[in-house]
Amino acid sequence: MPHIALPNLPGIRGPMAFRPETAKPLNELVEVLLHQPNTLTQGERELIATYVSSQNNCHYCQSSHGAIAAAHLNGNEDLVRRVKVDFHSADVSPKMKALLTIAGKVQQDGKSVTPADIQLARDEGATDLEIHDTVLIAAAFCMYNRYVDGLATVQPQDEALYRSRAKMIADEGYIAASRFNVMSAAAAGPAATT
Amino acid sequence: MPHIALPNLPGIRGPMAFRPETAKPLNELVEVLLHQPNTLTQGERELIATYVSSQNNCHYCQSSHGAIAAAHLNGNEDLVRRVKVDFHSADVSPKMKALLTIAGKVQQDGKSVTPADIQLARDEGATDLEIHDTVLIAAAFCMYNRYVDGLATVQPQDEALYRSRAKMIADEGYIAASRFNVMSAAAAGPAATT
Repeated sequence: MPHIALPNLPGIRGPMAFRPETAKPLNELVEVLLHQPNTLTQGERELIATYVSSQNNCHYCQSSHGAIAAAHLNGNEDLVRRVKVDFHSADVSPKMKALLTIAGKVQQDGKSVTPADIQLARDEGATDLEIHDTVLIAAAFCMYNRYVDGLATVQPQDEALYRSRAKMIADEGYIAASRFNVMSAAAAGPAATT
Repeated sequence: MPHIALPNLPGIRGPMAFRPETAKPLNELVEVLLHQPNTLTQGERELIATYVSSQNNCHYCQSSHGAIAAAHLNGNEDLVRRVKVDFHSADVSPKMKALLTIAGKVQQDGKSVTPADIQLARDEGATDLEIHDTVLIAAAFCMYNRYVDGLATVQPQDEALYRSRAKMIADEGYIAASRFNVMSAAAAGPAATT
């Protein structure tokens, strides 16, 4: 049961429908970071978001972005699981491992990122923009995860629900998908809370 | 020395000038949360942002938002300091103490917010929107703080520098102030990095 009276939608979709004024920049940020063209693929960026969300133990975010990552990666859900459990042994590039290391440090505390972490990423071919975006993706998911958990939003356990929406987001992006939130919220109406 | 080659501007202004595509939603989010009209005053919301930034030990964010909070609070820098050190003994309303308690929980982990924390805020008069915004302000500053620290941005120690900019932001807001970033960055040019 959410802490406040949110529209009856899962995860972040509830508070986004409740407060469209903040949903707009929140959607625009994730659209730029995860969906718009970048030298990091959409699958790679979704893996970073999924990894950080799993480190923050946010069920909704790791499930939804894990499903979107898999949708970008030919349905390879096993790779997503491996990245969450131990990315060092996962089948991702050395550059991705260096970026995931930086993301994991940011998840704990931005100050824990060292010049050696940055140098390793550079040595593996990461650009300044890729390092910037990795830091901001990790930082942003420390926000999204806390937003979703801090309001005790509804977080479905059924993985199939995440898969069915992931394909649309992978194809159309977050801003397009958010329009469905507004329609769904109008249909669902407000949920009762304590 | 920043981890990547950022324009020579302090704190978040460096990476915002480096990546205007993400700066736009980041500025719009903070504008809605901290500056636009709300039943929580601008000073109260800046105090929440300052408190969370101090809990995350982000020097730039606690200094800049602390100065903006003081600008809204008739220059009462002592109140800002007390909120950071021990808000329970600070001269803020019981509702603000309940909201700061929620913000502090979100800073650690959204899941640590309890129904009793929410009930206490309600008993002190907090609305659902105020609780929502408190959770999102706290979550958002867990992002801004990590962004600023994770890129090792320049964080001046001189408090006078924060005061001089705070008045403009308190009066004009974040989006208006961000226009000065673009001009300052063009004047400053890129900084050298390692």
